[in-house]
Amino acid sequence: MYFVTGNKGKFKEASLVIPGLKQADLGVPEIQADTLEEVARFSIEHAYARLHEPCFVEDAGLFVHALKGFPGPYSKFVNHTLDCGGLLKLMQGEKDRGAYFEACIAYHDGKKVHTFTGRCDGTIALAGKGRTGFGFDPVFLPEGSKKTFAEDEGYKNTVSHRRRALDGLTAFLNARK
Amino acid sequence: MYFVTGNKGKFKEASLVIPGLKQADLGVPEIQADTLEEVARFSIEHAYARLHEPCFVEDAGLFVHALKGFPGPYSKFVNHTLDCGGLLKLMQGEKDRGAYFEACIAYHDGKKVHTFTGRCDGTIALAGKGRTGFGFDPVFLPEGSKKTFAEDEGYKNTVSHRRRALDGLTAFLNARK
Repeated sequence: MYFVTGNKGKFKEASLVIPGLKQADLGVPEIQADTLEEVARFSIEHAYARLHEPCFVEDAGLFVHALKGFPGPYSKFVNHTLDCGGLLKLMQGEKDRGAYFEACIAYHDGKKVHTFTGRCDGTIALAGKGRTGFGFDPVFLPEGSKKTFAEDEGYKNTVSHRRRALDGLTAFLNARK
Repeated sequence: MYFVTGNKGKFKEASLVIPGLKQADLGVPEIQADTLEEVARFSIEHAYARLHEPCFVEDAGLFVHALKGFPGPYSKFVNHTLDCGGLLKLMQGEKDRGAYFEACIAYHDGKKVHTFTGRCDGTIALAGKGRTGFGFDPVFLPEGSKKTFAEDEGYKNTVSHRRRALDGLTAFLNARK
């Protein structure tokens, strides 16, 4: 099965959960939409039309309560422009530092599309810490830990939004065997 | 000719330049891309496939130098989440307040797509001012004026990125008559 992504960090995390997974970096289009599921559903149709083999895409984002869900579906772009520093600046003076990471996997089995969503709640740290992972990992403190995603890769890979969406996909695949 | 947009402010500005223009609010998809031209080219193909009549779409964004081009193609989403206040917060302490608005029109004449780009340079104001227009107009000071786009609608409609892109389209259409 193919994971259609150009992001090496995402592929690394997914291949820990699904042995034998192959990466396909196809550069499929992503739409601008309010929800990750809409983005993923659009992309998987393009990906399957090119591969004609079972495959999935995943779209993820960080949704900050005090910022009305920003950066949400545009987390990649915001990470490349404002980065963690810009996000921390926007959070200055905000009392509610609550946020969540969400991931949506859209899987095409050759006949139809199935989606699996994972969510990890937490807070935005007061300063960036840690060097593993990617994106906003250094500023995200998952519930139940005092370390950011970028400080504790092992914990991230156990509780993350991506892991939970991948667990949904693997449970679905196992039930079909 | 149809202007395919759900934005009343954009349609109002365009109909001042192109008399008899009709609005079509089709909800065509927009892709996530680095340039407005890519976004507009993708959307016009969807729009023409539905209308089968000459039509154009326009995508616009505010590109702030100190923020590496943020919010750029995602200006609408950023406006709905962070709004002008968030942008001003990100600009605190930045010495370079330079920015530009850009608009790209993609026009389908029934045979092929033509694009027209307009740009308006300026700076990000220290505080929001004015009530006309939409989006980031209250915080954008165009070159040659001490008033924001939202304080001087007449000046905006003379020098704006959208006006310049529309001028490109109308010059093209007139040359074909």
